Amino acid sequence: MADEFSTKGAYVTGGEFSRDTNYIEDRIVADPDAIRAMPAPPKSKVGSLGAGLTEGAEAWPVEPGRYRLVAARACPWANRTVIVRRLLGLEDAISLALPGPVHDVRSWTFDLDEGGRDPVLGTERVQENYFKRFPDYPRGITVPAIVDVPTGGVVTNDYPQITLDFSTQWREFHREGAPDLLPEHQLDEMWDVMTRVLTEVNNGVYRCGFAGSQQAYDDAYDRLWTAMDWLEERLASRRFLMGETITEADVRLFTTLARFDPVYHGHFKCNRQKLTEMPNLWGYARDLFQTPGFGDTIDFLQIKQHYYITHEDVNPTRIMPAGPDLANWLDEHDRASLGGSPFGDGTPPSPVRESERVPASGLAK
Amino acid sequence: MADEFSTKGAYVTGGEFSRDTNYIEDRIVADPDAIRAMPAPPKSKVGSLGAGLTEGAEAWPVEPGRYRLVAARACPWANRTVIVRRLLGLEDAISLALPGPVHDVRSWTFDLDEGGRDPVLGTERVQENYFKRFPDYPRGITVPAIVDVPTGGVVTNDYPQITLDFSTQWREFHREGAPDLLPEHQLDEMWDVMTRVLTEVNNGVYRCGFAGSQQAYDDAYDRLWTAMDWLEERLASRRFLMGETITEADVRLFTTLARFDPVYHGHFKCNRQKLTEMPNLWGYARDLFQTPGFGDTIDFLQIKQHYYITHEDVNPTRIMPAGPDLANWLDEHDRASLGGSPFGDGTPPSPVRESERVPASGLAK
Repeated sequence: MADEFSTKGAYVTGGEFSRDTNYIEDRIVADPDAIRAMPAPPKSKVGSLGAGLTEGAEAWPVEPGRYRLVAARACPWANRTVIVRRLLGLEDAISLALPGPVHDVRSWTFDLDEGGRDPVLGTERVQENYFKRFPDYPRGITVPAIVDVPTGGVVTNDYPQITLDFSTQWREFHREGAPDLLPEHQLDEMWDVMTRVLTEVNNGVYRCGFAGSQQAYDDAYDRLWTAMDWLEERLASRRFLMGETITEADVRLFTTLARFDPVYHGHFKCNRQKLTEMPNLWGYARDLFQTPGFGDTIDFLQIKQHYYITHEDVNPTRIMPAGPDLANWLDEHDRASLGGSPFGDGTPPSPVRESERVPASGLAK
Repeated sequence: MADEFSTKGAYVTGGEFSRDTNYIEDRIVADPDAIRAMPAPPKSKVGSLGAGLTEGAEAWPVEPGRYRLVAARACPWANRTVIVRRLLGLEDAISLALPGPVHDVRSWTFDLDEGGRDPVLGTERVQENYFKRFPDYPRGITVPAIVDVPTGGVVTNDYPQITLDFSTQWREFHREGAPDLLPEHQLDEMWDVMTRVLTEVNNGVYRCGFAGSQQAYDDAYDRLWTAMDWLEERLASRRFLMGETITEADVRLFTTLARFDPVYHGHFKCNRQKLTEMPNLWGYARDLFQTPGFGDTIDFLQIKQHYYITHEDVNPTRIMPAGPDLANWLDEHDRASLGGSPFGDGTPPSPVRESERVPASGLAK
């Protein structure tokens, strides 16, 4: 089954969906030599901090203007990187390429760009950039991917590490007032939260949607909703996942929540409740959506197009639902009554630059 | 396409789904000779009152114990007949056969009965009863169907007429306190309401779910929600569709509403809102659900099994969602504040007889 699911970076085994964790684990770092000298990190699905390279990986130097982040609006894993890039103000340091929402078995293409080619990389398919790095690249052609512009080759597609390195390795290029998304005193707890969010929620919705049997689905559904109930309770007394300010953990949960009612509820059968029926999670999701750097990266239209049109095995008609009504993402939330402030001592990012703005068709109206 | 959709009693033309209206239009009536002498009714999709037989149709005599109603729990059109039979207290006069929820291309089977045969008709498939009447019956094998027990042949499957005839032709066998589901002074308005409910809602959800193109779906979605908004407004000031008491119109709307969130919202992409997000419609649906004769005929499990497992063209995995949480069907409603009373001068039916009770697994818990 690995081939069938390769563009999803995932495979199905014994009826249960699993995510392929075999990525290009190179890193772009402030001091390559120092990183090379550090011990390899322990196995982790959420990335690592304060450790060196995994076996066989390379270190690339931080260098503004050298790298291009390839991140489809539709993809939740890519969405994380777009949000963190904006929160930290890395737009000038790392440029952004945006493949369209719909792809074929050969994966993402730059079909939204003039002439169907990315204006900087000059390629039609992200696959070409993988092949420029590894001519016989055998694994999933996934986004996010960071491309070395001079050579056109993919440096890394190791999504959990990319955002951590944006925070820690690109610090010199952060905007003034950038938030600390990895607050030192909360890291231990945050790692546990992010791990549970990853395995139970970020992947949990896919486990429901791509279940190969009724039993696998039923088990996946129970796992997902156990975690959703845990989050609902956690967010009853905390404005954000870790408390008073936004962190990396919120970014990672948010990109799944934004897709929950438009896609996962129906398409992936994650339908015990809608997100809008979970008062704390829904207030929390709206709070983030309305915070600069989060909602302004969300293109609901591309999100729906991606899942409904690409997954023919789940939706053979490829017809995209017109619902749900998404205007309520802009409804007031009362989360401020829990105290805290998204950016803590920092400030919100400036408005999105014109060239990266989500078109009106993609936003909740 | 007619063959593909034949078991649904429907066909697709030009991308838009249409319901096959070519039924066996025989009728079971109190006075066959009188009916034969009356002029044929005008063309109507909601049945006719005060008119004779359609061309080529036969009149059969009302006779308690002679006929068996074949009505799968899953099917909304069959569900109407089960509700009206209960509201009017026709259980002793007309017995009930219950095919299982899942069928193949040869349609409904008595797979829930011991030995896989209906205990009275002795058949395994409803198709056999159609063939006993017409050996080469070429159209959809649909429920509801009324079978003449002595010959085993189907008398009629003309669903809009069946419930009207239960009210008007079987009057001698109605229970004491049976409601008047066809109040004379409201018939004109009721016909308009039932026609709009049929074309825009009862069929509207299928038009969304079986649309053959994005354009056909988008048009169907707009039509459906225009009608849902009309109903939401209508029910703001009326406890029931026609006002103070339940009528045939409520029965016909209710069976679609009961399936809305469990099936039509996700499976048929009728997802602007859930029914639970339409306050008047949702209060109205709960009011009816909690009225004897309505909710006690609903088997949510069979409903979900039917659509998700039978429609492989829409749901190729045949995996059935575990959601939504349906316990809220038993939540209090405040519809009594609008006045009125479901049965008017009549009384509610007695509890469902043991042999016809929906198992606990099929009810909202």
